[in-house]
Amino acid sequence: MPDPLITLTTDFGEESPYVAAMKGVILTINPAARLVDLSHQVPPQNLRYAAFFLAAALPYWPPEALHVVVVDPGVGTERAILHVAIGHLRLLVPDNGCWTTLAEATTPSQVIRAANPRYWRPEVSATFHGRDIFAPLAGHLSLGLDPSLLGPAVQEWVSLALPTARREPDGWHGEVAFVDHFGNLITNIPGDAIPGTPDEVELGGRRLRASEYQRVRSYAEAPPGTLVALESSTGRFELAIVQGNAAHRFGAGEGTPVVIRGMPTG
Amino acid sequence: MPDPLITLTTDFGEESPYVAAMKGVILTINPAARLVDLSHQVPPQNLRYAAFFLAAALPYWPPEALHVVVVDPGVGTERAILHVAIGHLRLLVPDNGCWTTLAEATTPSQVIRAANPRYWRPEVSATFHGRDIFAPLAGHLSLGLDPSLLGPAVQEWVSLALPTARREPDGWHGEVAFVDHFGNLITNIPGDAIPGTPDEVELGGRRLRASEYQRVRSYAEAPPGTLVALESSTGRFELAIVQGNAAHRFGAGEGTPVVIRGMPTG
Amino acid sequence: MPDPLITLTTDFGEESPYVAAMKGVILTINPAARLVDLSHQVPPQNLRYAAFFLAAALPYWPPEALHVVVVDPGVGTERAILHVAIGHLRLLVPDNGCWTTLAEATTPSQVIRAANPRYWRPEVSATFHGRDIFAPLAGHLSLGLDPSLLGPAVQEWVSLALPTARREPDGWHGEVAFVDHFGNLITNIPGDAIPGTPDEVELGGRRLRASEYQRVRSYAEAPPGTLVALESSTGRFELAIVQGNAAHRFGAGEGTPVVIRGMPTG
Repeated sequence: MPDPLITLTTDFGEESPYVAAMKGVILTINPAARLVDLSHQVPPQNLRYAAFFLAAALPYWPPEALHVVVVDPGVGTERAILHVAIGHLRLLVPDNGCWTTLAEATTPSQVIRAANPRYWRPEVSATFHGRDIFAPLAGHLSLGLDPSLLGPAVQEWVSLALPTARREPDGWHGEVAFVDHFGNLITNIPGDAIPGTPDEVELGGRRLRASEYQRVRSYAEAPPGTLVALESSTGRFELAIVQGNAAHRFGAGEGTPVVIRGMPTG
Repeated sequence: MPDPLITLTTDFGEESPYVAAMKGVILTINPAARLVDLSHQVPPQNLRYAAFFLAAALPYWPPEALHVVVVDPGVGTERAILHVAIGHLRLLVPDNGCWTTLAEATTPSQVIRAANPRYWRPEVSATFHGRDIFAPLAGHLSLGLDPSLLGPAVQEWVSLALPTARREPDGWHGEVAFVDHFGNLITNIPGDAIPGTPDEVELGGRRLRASEYQRVRSYAEAPPGTLVALESSTGRFELAIVQGNAAHRFGAGEGTPVVIRGMPTG
Repeated sequence: MPDPLITLTTDFGEESPYVAAMKGVILTINPAARLVDLSHQVPPQNLRYAAFFLAAALPYWPPEALHVVVVDPGVGTERAILHVAIGHLRLLVPDNGCWTTLAEATTPSQVIRAANPRYWRPEVSATFHGRDIFAPLAGHLSLGLDPSLLGPAVQEWVSLALPTARREPDGWHGEVAFVDHFGNLITNIPGDAIPGTPDEVELGGRRLRASEYQRVRSYAEAPPGTLVALESSTGRFELAIVQGNAAHRFGAGEGTPVVIRGMPTG
């Protein structure tokens, strides 16, 4: 059997020593653990970003992995730390809703509040639970520790209230949910709700007529520089500039309103 | 025998969930695969950058590794995906020339067009072949799948036409081929073609006399802030500012013309 | 026994091919080595940053790992390369003081000058000892090579002179030692020297009265946007903006003077 997998997702940045310290703590407890970086570039304290990231990435992972997420603006307060079993996934997360987008599709089978300090570092700082609580817990869990020994099962947790897109008489109203590295604008509007080329896409108050963009399946169907609308790889309605950066071009970002009007019939 | 190695080179950025999804797909198929990140910071869609990167990095790798490269502006179109055996290296790449700088020194021994969907994810998106085609192929190949089962061998592929430096009566004419993290300007002019201190280096139209720069073997031979000319670790003629950033200082980048005149005789 | 661990800390950036080449060289010599990235985002040539980084991260690592550090402005000159055994840690570092903050707490038990070219790459460039010396040494050491075969033991090495905070009649005088990814300002003043809420914190000449900041144990004790003073997870006096960026707000960085006056008695 391959050695246990632990993934790390944080907002610590690669340049800070925080991730490196966490890795050392885990490997001190379980020198055989296999660490996989998912991202340390979640924007600081951005729980919505983390939620989108996890929902887009974790479903593709095998059950062998433990996913440690430290995007934790409430570090040092009474917010809990949770071990979550949801579908085939296992996560170790702060109780701040960063993981609950995953729970929209699947109900967690077990949520444990990791309250038992027995598996923490002996001295716990007030500002770095990643090193002092998450990392040692991950190390012990990867050695086979039963999660139910971490603390009590709980039935309630913080949920992130994410804006949802809605169908109104004049069309779909939603917003940009995520801007990726390419500057592509991924909305919260379901991709299959917009099958053709609507008459108008309004982005942050700017109205784009069907003649101003091109409906495509993949970016390269249109020449570089073209504004295109397509279904994202995460199943959302997406706006992009071919080989360009739509976020920069339109000054758009997470939360920018998007309205789609004049849907083709049929 | 150690577990199989798979390297990943993309332009996805660390902050996007795309690399994380690819890693999950690979490890679902082969939980024992060892993943090594080469870079996810190739500038978006920059095939020349990818070509330089791969030529500078891959020759140092052992034959055990499979190198997966997803810099893929043509995703979703008819561009092929190739499994390439070249020298001791094996690559999985889009057929867009990103790997062909390696082929300047060595002829590939086998190029397979990965056309057989049997080893892809069952549902293939139009915009994320990294997750839906490259990753599952890499997983299966790392389990020992014979590449010839991926599809037909091909004799033709897209080659990247990279500008080459040329010797003219007045000197060497070339350009900046790569700017590294330090802002060092690495040209396409062979390092051993410029053995001494030429009278003049022209960079983007700016003429630098021999009195304005220093010819060195290593950066620290000159004081911080000095403009130096040297042979890069990749064997090219390079311009750098000691402990500074030559790209910023001269506003130079990939493609900036470089002319070298008044070569020392002998 | 798990396969040997090698960590990598450099200032090469993820976008350059230099780290990728180093990884290939190591795995060519020892295909079973397990590579762990600590950071490739140390600011270029910044030895103080590297020193802080290593002192904050390495003590949490198990003895199994070899820590390779390539922040090396003196590459190609006569500066030595050292194999250091210090406490339970083993490092491979340039002799430029980047590691000596670790030595403030613990005396190295052995320092070897890696002068024997037998374990280097046959051709050594003048500008990339990471690939040509550090990586092959790491590969061989991970196979069990006795460090004493690398060269002679030495009793002297370059030490980094880091400014230390001092207690003066009017209070503590120090400076910002490190700015992390969140823009938190971590000073060189011991955290336990400042137990309460001093009357005044002077930051880069700007005097902040006790009414202008809040003394906390953890960030989330104060509302977003609040300036807070706390003890950092590395045991230093720290200034931060809750869910904001103190470095940007105050234009402060590494070396910005910090004076703390009017300490609470008792």
